[in-house]
Amino acid sequence: MARILRFDRLPIERPTLVLDRERVMRNIARMSARAKAAGVGFRPHFKTHQSALIGDWFRDHGVTGITVSSVAMAEYFAAAGWSDITIAIPVNPREIARIRELAGLIELGVLVESRETVDLLAESLDAPVQVWIKVDAGYGRAGIRWDETDRIRALAQRIREQRRLSFAGILAHSGHSYHEVRWGDIQATRQAVLRVHEESLTRLQGVREALLAGGLEACAISVGDTPTCSQAEHFRGADEIRPGNFVFYDLMQLQLGSCTGAEIAVAVATPVLAVYPERRQILLYGGAVHLAVQALPGASERRWFGCLAAELAGTTGETRPQVGSPHESAGRERAITAEQTEGLGIPEMAAPLTSLSQEHGIADLPEALIETIRCGDIVLVYPVHSCLTGNLYDRYVTLGGEEIPRFRSLPSA
Amino acid sequence: MARILRFDRLPIERPTLVLDRERVMRNIARMSARAKAAGVGFRPHFKTHQSALIGDWFRDHGVTGITVSSVAMAEYFAAAGWSDITIAIPVNPREIARIRELAGLIELGVLVESRETVDLLAESLDAPVQVWIKVDAGYGRAGIRWDETDRIRALAQRIREQRRLSFAGILAHSGHSYHEVRWGDIQATRQAVLRVHEESLTRLQGVREALLAGGLEACAISVGDTPTCSQAEHFRGADEIRPGNFVFYDLMQLQLGSCTGAEIAVAVATPVLAVYPERRQILLYGGAVHLAVQALPGASERRWFGCLAAELAGTTGETRPQVGSPHESAGRERAITAEQTEGLGIPEMAAPLTSLSQEHGIADLPEALIETIRCGDIVLVYPVHSCLTGNLYDRYVTLGGEEIPRFRSLPSA
Repeated sequence: MARILRFDRLPIERPTLVLDRERVMRNIARMSARAKAAGVGFRPHFKTHQSALIGDWFRDHGVTGITVSSVAMAEYFAAAGWSDITIAIPVNPREIARIRELAGLIELGVLVESRETVDLLAESLDAPVQVWIKVDAGYGRAGIRWDETDRIRALAQRIREQRRLSFAGILAHSGHSYHEVRWGDIQATRQAVLRVHEESLTRLQGVREALLAGGLEACAISVGDTPTCSQAEHFRGADEIRPGNFVFYDLMQLQLGSCTGAEIAVAVATPVLAVYPERRQILLYGGAVHLAVQALPGASERRWFGCLAAELAGTTGETRPQVGSPHESAGRERAITAEQTEGLGIPEMAAPLTSLSQEHGIADLPEALIETIRCGDIVLVYPVHSCLTGNLYDRYVTLGGEEIPRFRSLPSA
Repeated sequence: MARILRFDRLPIERPTLVLDRERVMRNIARMSARAKAAGVGFRPHFKTHQSALIGDWFRDHGVTGITVSSVAMAEYFAAAGWSDITIAIPVNPREIARIRELAGLIELGVLVESRETVDLLAESLDAPVQVWIKVDAGYGRAGIRWDETDRIRALAQRIREQRRLSFAGILAHSGHSYHEVRWGDIQATRQAVLRVHEESLTRLQGVREALLAGGLEACAISVGDTPTCSQAEHFRGADEIRPGNFVFYDLMQLQLGSCTGAEIAVAVATPVLAVYPERRQILLYGGAVHLAVQALPGASERRWFGCLAAELAGTTGETRPQVGSPHESAGRERAITAEQTEGLGIPEMAAPLTSLSQEHGIADLPEALIETIRCGDIVLVYPVHSCLTGNLYDRYVTLGGEEIPRFRSLPSA
């Protein structure tokens, strides 16, 4: 256990979302290199960062097409200069007017899973769109099941018959990789994640073969979730990957074996409001409205809503195991440089947040760690799910104090 | 089971937070009347609605003092004309400059639980403030434990010695009443909630007696959580109550026996993106960023993140049991008028949301209910915890289409 990091770099008054630019840059470079090495296209999902400025950091890696999760987000990134955007949620018929407008401005990709939506697109659009059939490769959330090849084929045929619609291929999100955490056993977790990956690819290739056998000339395969994209050695048969969370990572990804603690690129700086040595807890000004309620999967005994950051002293140039994870001994080894560990520190899993109410958070700490903390200190909390935590803020603040605005979809009429 | 309500009143495109103004008005009138009948002050917590306009609806009931949960929220309501505000979270030393400024503008109440905070207030303020000692009456979150009377007395004495500080009394939030859900047994749940209430009041009265015996002239007692304030017959010894959630209620309160289904005053209108008759599910454009992740307590088999609204036909003037709750047969009886049930309908607990990802939600429905739903319909989702759901929006939309702006604390540097 290292000491809890007291975050003195910036004049923090209230919960603030702090971003480590260098870590973000490295995460982007690494995923881009993985896609290139595997010979697949890289269409990163921007729902995690939702920032035009951070989006620009991808351009240096040759990224020209992106993924988003709402029409509003597509509009935002189109205005920021992106001209090739896939909206990776089934078409919402209520937004057809805005989809039509976007299709006239950029190369737009949309998802369908029913004939009625295809027909709605066909009769509403006056510019071409790329239409992906959403396939459920085992997650059980959205899409047509991979084994319903007749339905998929009929829908693909229907798309091809429409003048404005191009059949792009089949698209899946194997989010059930997130359910594969084996608490405390990182090797078993990784093997389970990779089994999901192999199974999904096999199923999607089966769908494509059925489509090609049925007379279609081409059918791309688009996949992408951060656990498999961070860990898989190959993407056999896939044409593009669409991971999003990797740009920041979080405790859930650490848990899944997708990252090291020194690769998590955002944390919430929170003031300490009280210290309770007798119950080995501290009270944070940081609750559900600052962190988002998401318990770490696999933590069976109690719920973990985040953890504090620790200092990591004297590690420049060292190669260390995945420090700060619950899998300390089993983690993959990576060099941690001083540059990586300064600022946001590393997760201290011995100091989890065990309770969140609207504005308050409670962290449990061993005696040795609690002794160094005082009311009024600023500590950093690593989020369990950075996509949801980010959604609560309208900006990031970098370690240098620069503010990075964030799109904040205001879901209202 | 009634039919699922298709919400056609407003031209909804995206997830929208809909507010039933009549239900809100009735909830305010009812709680205000409860406080008057019990002979206690009513200092409602505004963290749930966070709206200057909705705040004004309380003025007709003689409310002049309010409660908030952050300095920023106090600033917002001070600007909206409220001149007596208690900030019900322990003083954050990092915001002392803003607390000083507020203290010069309004009658400000603050919470302390340590000598260092009292000293910081004493040396920083140049206008008087009301200082409450935060007491933990059993919740185990914040405050000095009720049985540490020596510490409480010493702190009260310290407060009284400071020129700018007035010792107001002791303040508690018995949030552990929320842990008392007995799934499917509303009577046992209510009895357990009331046991928490009695226990807390007894403990707080004990603290006050010790303080008065120790030489203090006066010590007010402030309590308030929506479950006990909605259900208790008395507030023995308390001087004021500070409930907040009652203004909207939600499924958690329904579960706790605090309200009927027809008293829940907010719901999220969401488009249906897909219907899966074979697995008896529908896919909603409504995920964690539109609803907030909060599982219904006590739902042991699976997690419930909300439920759909049903129509309630032919009930004008009828007295009905607590329709739509899992405790249908045991609910307390209240007249449901047509006015109450139109618009937002009532919760259909046979149609729960069982999965939420960032933008997607999945609802499980019996065959009889799913048959009536089409892709593109707008359905209403009742939130599990309306405080957290509201926090995701910058406005409410009433049933008449009026927009009500909402304070949106942007927690950043």
